[in-house]
Amino acid sequence: MNLSELESTALHLFDSVRELCEDGVGITRASYGSGETAAINFLCDFARRNELMVSTDAAANVIFSLPGASDAPGVWVGSHLDSVPQGGNFDGLSGVVAGLLCLLRQHRSSGNIAAPLRVIGFRGEESAWFGKAYIGSAAMLGMLAPEDMHLRQRGTDRTLAECMSAVGADVKTINLHRPLVELDQVCAYLELHIEQGPVMVARALPLAVVTGIRGNVRHQKITCVGEAGHSGTVPRWLRRDAMFAVADLIVRLDEHWRVLLERGTDLVVTTGICSTDPADHSMSRIPGRVSFSFEARSRSSDTLEEFYKLMKSECSAIASRRQVDFEFDRRQVSAPAQMDSLICSILKEACQSRGVAHDLIPSGAGHDASLFANAGIPAGMLFIRNQNGSHNPAEGMEISDFMLGVQVLEDAVRLLSSNECSRLEPKS
Amino acid sequence: MNLSELESTALHLFDSVRELCEDGVGITRASYGSGETAAINFLCDFARRNELMVSTDAAANVIFSLPGASDAPGVWVGSHLDSVPQGGNFDGLSGVVAGLLCLLRQHRSSGNIAAPLRVIGFRGEESAWFGKAYIGSAAMLGMLAPEDMHLRQRGTDRTLAECMSAVGADVKTINLHRPLVELDQVCAYLELHIEQGPVMVARALPLAVVTGIRGNVRHQKITCVGEAGHSGTVPRWLRRDAMFAVADLIVRLDEHWRVLLERGTDLVVTTGICSTDPADHSMSRIPGRVSFSFEARSRSSDTLEEFYKLMKSECSAIASRRQVDFEFDRRQVSAPAQMDSLICSILKEACQSRGVAHDLIPSGAGHDASLFANAGIPAGMLFIRNQNGSHNPAEGMEISDFMLGVQVLEDAVRLLSSNECSRLEPKS
Repeated sequence: MNLSELESTALHLFDSVRELCEDGVGITRASYGSGETAAINFLCDFARRNELMVSTDAAANVIFSLPGASDAPGVWVGSHLDSVPQGGNFDGLSGVVAGLLCLLRQHRSSGNIAAPLRVIGFRGEESAWFGKAYIGSAAMLGMLAPEDMHLRQRGTDRTLAECMSAVGADVKTINLHRPLVELDQVCAYLELHIEQGPVMVARALPLAVVTGIRGNVRHQKITCVGEAGHSGTVPRWLRRDAMFAVADLIVRLDEHWRVLLERGTDLVVTTGICSTDPADHSMSRIPGRVSFSFEARSRSSDTLEEFYKLMKSECSAIASRRQVDFEFDRRQVSAPAQMDSLICSILKEACQSRGVAHDLIPSGAGHDASLFANAGIPAGMLFIRNQNGSHNPAEGMEISDFMLGVQVLEDAVRLLSSNECSRLEPKS
Repeated sequence: MNLSELESTALHLFDSVRELCEDGVGITRASYGSGETAAINFLCDFARRNELMVSTDAAANVIFSLPGASDAPGVWVGSHLDSVPQGGNFDGLSGVVAGLLCLLRQHRSSGNIAAPLRVIGFRGEESAWFGKAYIGSAAMLGMLAPEDMHLRQRGTDRTLAECMSAVGADVKTINLHRPLVELDQVCAYLELHIEQGPVMVARALPLAVVTGIRGNVRHQKITCVGEAGHSGTVPRWLRRDAMFAVADLIVRLDEHWRVLLERGTDLVVTTGICSTDPADHSMSRIPGRVSFSFEARSRSSDTLEEFYKLMKSECSAIASRRQVDFEFDRRQVSAPAQMDSLICSILKEACQSRGVAHDLIPSGAGHDASLFANAGIPAGMLFIRNQNGSHNPAEGMEISDFMLGVQVLEDAVRLLSSNECSRLEPKS
């Protein structure tokens, strides 16, 4: 299978999956929803038609391998198949397609491979649907918390347990909190992903090797409770305006953030969701309730903890000053992660020997790879240059950049599977 | 009809209308919607059963009068029959019920009345539904702007013209922009209304005479347009975060407001509606669009204009600093209004002679009476004490306070209809 065939196969897979998931604005593959399942079903059919083996784990993640692959420790390549609402096609999907192309080339080359390659397509990576990220990989690694099963889908309000069962997952097995595969058979986890920030485009780098992944601390829903009232009749000093209180909080956090950046701290802060209550809000009503999300991301766990405390203390100050209360849902934490240094070197050498401009960069976004790294499995990531960020329909990865990534990934898998796999040592 | 009969009639009317409009939380009578129409239909049946005359104007407002009432100039008493979503039962309805009780007493007393009393129940007073207040009274006074007909209902998205037609209004006649009744037959307009602020409860005043009504300047929808992006990957200096920009604006306006109050300016400022886009917002997405409402109220037109300019200039400053744009829908203005001094005296004297504790207070909320006053028709308002403000289900008017108001209203109508009507001079 030459490079030109490989590229047209890639285009066929991207276009076909896109068509299945178009929503009129971008593409939507809800975690444990129809778009995600459609993508998985299409890729399974494609894999079977190409004589690859297809299986699923108890969390309904899909795993592709060569026919007759041994149970020996091997390299896993994967990414996720869900998307944010009205998102782009390449976020997640590109990593699974890249893995499938590597498998196809192994199958056609029929060389002797001691360490089998497994390609995994995770469900439920995006936090947009259940307010929690990495659900599929967490389930596979036995790390899904019991209370996570009660999280509710943003649109349907169905629980995660219901949605997982509906796509064939075995919730009872997941609830045992044991890994769903033998982890000592995973000697390395590699993930190819589009870059979701502006760095590589700005620096004209088709590829980059990821050094580490930012962690985050989040609340899906904080509710500021004040007192509703007629907008014309309540003077300023008697108001308990929830909207003014939330605006006050956001501006204070923005100022803290600015100061921390000046000190060189790694941090981003976002309120992605904020809303007065659509059931009763009106132009002439002082808002009595405002709900909003909170997220801070950093490569440092200490920074996350400190900024979180700062947020809580500003809430207390505003609560007292403006006579409101802040109610918090469950705090979600994803730990920052370091990529394995040997895998980073292998990826970097592969870029160099292919003559591809590249660099080492940290990932601001979270990825399933962080869970593998924090579970002690050596992990590495390769970023593909991508215009216009991600989580929006305008994301724009060039297929030529993607194909460079597939080649580098293939080189790294080959090296790891033959010589290097035994040199990798789990960290935990 | 003695006072005890009158009170039980009042309770019957309030309770019956409440039952028709309950929504599970409070009561809902949408402007030109089913709850408003149900209230009108019930009151019309009640009036006809009690031998009162019922008619509607071309804007589907309802008018009650004595059988055989002459066309001579007379006193009008009225208020509105719509409510905010999940609002309270007395806001608006109490003024129409009070007028009906006065009519009933006139009918039963069968005295000789030269100046006929007319009681009007307006539709469409609350801005919550179409983003514009006083629609019914503006239509009756020939003051509805052509573009108002294209305003859309918040829930159904149907235009005002469609919704008015659906309840029997004659949109063509309204669009002639001429008064729907002969205005020189309206020698005075009186409105009884619950107080919507905390003043009368705090000062133990069952009744108050309104001196003037705050005007307002509003936008139903301002959209802040930035750029959506992945919350983990875009550094602070590259962000165009629409939510942080709107929070910045609100906090700046709050600070200007605080300073203006210290200088003795009459002003309240509210952002009753604010929301990231529910179609695509998520915890991990920098908001690219945030929509919000703006409202400033004051007894001074100059203050409204100055604060509006301040808001626009802060928007410009934030647009430039945070690389966002602000898009404004049509500006809505309601002029402040002065109540007629002779009517104020008559209401005050009526309170005194009944021995009711009262005072002169301005109205922070807007009322249909402001349109009559600004159209040159002498207008007056009587406030009834009311717990817990309004625009919420917890509003709590005592029936004993209401009955005091009905008596004072009746006294004032009697005085105006017999001796004083000829002394009132239109101002325009």
